Amino acid sequence: MDLNADMGEGFGSWSMGDDSALLEVVTSANVACGFHAGDPSIMRRVTAEAVERGVAIGAHVGYADKAGFGRRHVDIEPATLRDEVLYQLGALDAFARIAGDRVRYVKPHGALYNTIGHHVDQATAVVTAVAEYDSTLPVLGLPGSAWLQLAIEAGLTAVHEAFADRAYTPAGTLVSRRETGSVLHDADEIAARCTAMATGQPIQDVWGGTLVVEAASICVHGDTPGAVDIARQVRGALEGAGVTVRPFTG
Amino acid sequence: MDLNADMGEGFGSWSMGDDSALLEVVTSANVACGFHAGDPSIMRRVTAEAVERGVAIGAHVGYADKAGFGRRHVDIEPATLRDEVLYQLGALDAFARIAGDRVRYVKPHGALYNTIGHHVDQATAVVTAVAEYDSTLPVLGLPGSAWLQLAIEAGLTAVHEAFADRAYTPAGTLVSRRETGSVLHDADEIAARCTAMATGQPIQDVWGGTLVVEAASICVHGDTPGAVDIARQVRGALEGAGVTVRPFTG
Amino acid sequence: MDLNADMGEGFGSWSMGDDSALLEVVTSANVACGFHAGDPSIMRRVTAEAVERGVAIGAHVGYADKAGFGRRHVDIEPATLRDEVLYQLGALDAFARIAGDRVRYVKPHGALYNTIGHHVDQATAVVTAVAEYDSTLPVLGLPGSAWLQLAIEAGLTAVHEAFADRAYTPAGTLVSRRETGSVLHDADEIAARCTAMATGQPIQDVWGGTLVVEAASICVHGDTPGAVDIARQVRGALEGAGVTVRPFTG
Amino acid sequence: MDLNADMGEGFGSWSMGDDSALLEVVTSANVACGFHAGDPSIMRRVTAEAVERGVAIGAHVGYADKAGFGRRHVDIEPATLRDEVLYQLGALDAFARIAGDRVRYVKPHGALYNTIGHHVDQATAVVTAVAEYDSTLPVLGLPGSAWLQLAIEAGLTAVHEAFADRAYTPAGTLVSRRETGSVLHDADEIAARCTAMATGQPIQDVWGGTLVVEAASICVHGDTPGAVDIARQVRGALEGAGVTVRPFTG
Repeated sequence: MDLNADMGEGFGSWSMGDDSALLEVVTSANVACGFHAGDPSIMRRVTAEAVERGVAIGAHVGYADKAGFGRRHVDIEPATLRDEVLYQLGALDAFARIAGDRVRYVKPHGALYNTIGHHVDQATAVVTAVAEYDSTLPVLGLPGSAWLQLAIEAGLTAVHEAFADRAYTPAGTLVSRRETGSVLHDADEIAARCTAMATGQPIQDVWGGTLVVEAASICVHGDTPGAVDIARQVRGALEGAGVTVRPFTG
Repeated sequence: MDLNADMGEGFGSWSMGDDSALLEVVTSANVACGFHAGDPSIMRRVTAEAVERGVAIGAHVGYADKAGFGRRHVDIEPATLRDEVLYQLGALDAFARIAGDRVRYVKPHGALYNTIGHHVDQATAVVTAVAEYDSTLPVLGLPGSAWLQLAIEAGLTAVHEAFADRAYTPAGTLVSRRETGSVLHDADEIAARCTAMATGQPIQDVWGGTLVVEAASICVHGDTPGAVDIARQVRGALEGAGVTVRPFTG
Repeated sequence: MDLNADMGEGFGSWSMGDDSALLEVVTSANVACGFHAGDPSIMRRVTAEAVERGVAIGAHVGYADKAGFGRRHVDIEPATLRDEVLYQLGALDAFARIAGDRVRYVKPHGALYNTIGHHVDQATAVVTAVAEYDSTLPVLGLPGSAWLQLAIEAGLTAVHEAFADRAYTPAGTLVSRRETGSVLHDADEIAARCTAMATGQPIQDVWGGTLVVEAASICVHGDTPGAVDIARQVRGALEGAGVTVRPFTG
Repeated sequence: MDLNADMGEGFGSWSMGDDSALLEVVTSANVACGFHAGDPSIMRRVTAEAVERGVAIGAHVGYADKAGFGRRHVDIEPATLRDEVLYQLGALDAFARIAGDRVRYVKPHGALYNTIGHHVDQATAVVTAVAEYDSTLPVLGLPGSAWLQLAIEAGLTAVHEAFADRAYTPAGTLVSRRETGSVLHDADEIAARCTAMATGQPIQDVWGGTLVVEAASICVHGDTPGAVDIARQVRGALEGAGVTVRPFTG
């Protein structure tokens, strides 16, 4: 099982999360590319440290919106979005390459991630950018999303991810953050759930039923000190259950 | 002889110059990388058209300052500048590569170009970025500049450029734009002077003496309709004198 | 009748439209406030020239999106939007005041204008900002828009505008730009139509029926040389028909 | 004696310092105006809270450089700088006014503060902006700076500030941050020194001599939890010594 987390989300004098601590725990780093967060020096530092630790570097591409941290939908022209994704891919790859590796996968960020779950034109734009840049790059997302569906149709490798701390509907989709109980906070519960997902066991859905979530990667958070502790506990639980934790990119 | 010109200097809904017209004339395109000018879609369009026409793509890296068009010196930390140059190189290369070629050389823009003529720390920063990214990339600049000197010391290929419409001092440096007569406006004079430079003949310096300017590339301007006409006339004069006009990158 | 036009839409070294020419024609200037276009020096120049010519200064507030020229919808939090509008109002007012006048009205730009035609939360946000800043400021918009409706409910003065070159449906709404025939190009037709609107005469709707459009201001365009000529012709036609052309703000 | 501190230095999802804690301690708030830091919603929140607590609102104007946090010198045209300062003043004033007060003074930030200590053209630009906006606004700075000198010549009220935690040369200037011992870290020493400055007693200069520092305001820092504690201790010491702590703006 792979553990992925967002990283490199500071900007200039502003920091967010503890990238170094998180890089000790996860196996895939979704590195911000300077559009919604991140800047060239942060990208250099995070990619260098990721390579040192054997963590796979993913391009965490987002809308060009630092003021909104990439968390608000932008009704951007698909061709413009496609080019913005290419730009981010190339920029991050420069740092991954001088660090001795390269970008290994693509995972969109925030509002872009949500939008391309259903917005066919924007999903196609991101898929096209990845296919143009390097059609061997796997893309990470939710099962059933337009994003992964279109990626498959374009010949890309689509990889399913699960979320460590999010409630699931019986249909296997995420419960909206606006609803109560959509986010889990108990570290033990989160760790147990991740272990279940990693070993093919069912988890409880939001209505009390059971559900098997299949994923090659689990997304954990790292933007608070508590979050890093939970991530650490998740990894510990996985390893305790005999699950090998390593990058999904192999 | 190579003719180089700045290109892709629009931004979003704002345009500048006529890239298509200019790409019919020059052999090397200094393409803005989105920091002082340019945006992903412009970069895509210009690189695609350059490849189509056999024009070499250069990374026209600049300070991150769209409001000032990269024309004002910024006292940036060298390490930050180095990373900003790497970021720009990677981003432009993404577009050059999907167009079927790659970035072929580096020429800094505006205030950065001027600053690294003498500012050793910033010059070293840009040199380091190029060397880290691809040490086979030639760099374009003025003879005698710290930029080219340090590039040579770092093992890069330094290429001399001349300016089609700028007055030269007897020492072979450019007359400051602040002085009268620093910029030539007569198309015939400019064309004659470029032909002289391309064929090893002396040109007149600002004091009336003569001077041989050796360069592998001549920089022409294209940000006004008149400028494109002058560039066209320069090319015609060079070809009329039997000079082969082609990219200095070979 | 008032004629309003967008102005100050350059940015740094990039220009758009001919503000000086347009200021000779219109009576109300929708001045970009630096978020979707414009910058402090452009705002200073345009407001100074507007005051000189007796043209009323309006705050042309927009989304913070220079790369998209404010033309793409952003799903911004209403409270954030409210504060961004306040920021723009204060900034423009600084220049209007040192020029000897003050901001006289508010007209949102581009995608924001379109969004608040129907998006109640964003419309409320803009209304709230105006009411907080100066509840005596009139707001300009389309009859029937959520924007004007909510403005009236908040006690603001809502002013109707018509569009010189846009086709109208029988219901008095604009034909979408995506449909053929939505934009008129013939200067004579545009001028005749503006005269009709200014004198209470019916105009032809897109289906061939007739329609009376009531408005206190007509929006003309100025972003191309041809557009300024059309605006000039509109003004000439209005004056020829005995219509006094002056700011709606009195 | 007045205590001033920088505030509102977050940006979007990024925070810096604890504005609320600091507003309980200081009497003048240097509020970032969205150019080097801050955004409209932060400006609204900080000004509202400042007014509630009787803390005077100052415009902390800076270079338009969020990536560099306004800490790097930009060789900007003086006219452009003048207009950028006006823009920031107007924007902040909008929030100060809807909170029930107005901008009470101007203190430049970071590299701009340092530059206008000696750079006459940029200092004149900032002075001109303040004089144009409201010539009754006092300006805060270092005794002997070009900034204060030119402000006085322009008829503005120049107010001297001292720095709580910076070493002074015998000449009364600050020891450069690049030198060892330039910044004091011991809370007791800092508090004692502020009390001395507030009561006209000499302090020790960096060479061991004594020096009387006259100031109407002392600048304290607040960007770390420890810094707020020191600020609190400074205020306690001043009050313990019978010094009334209140805004210098009266």
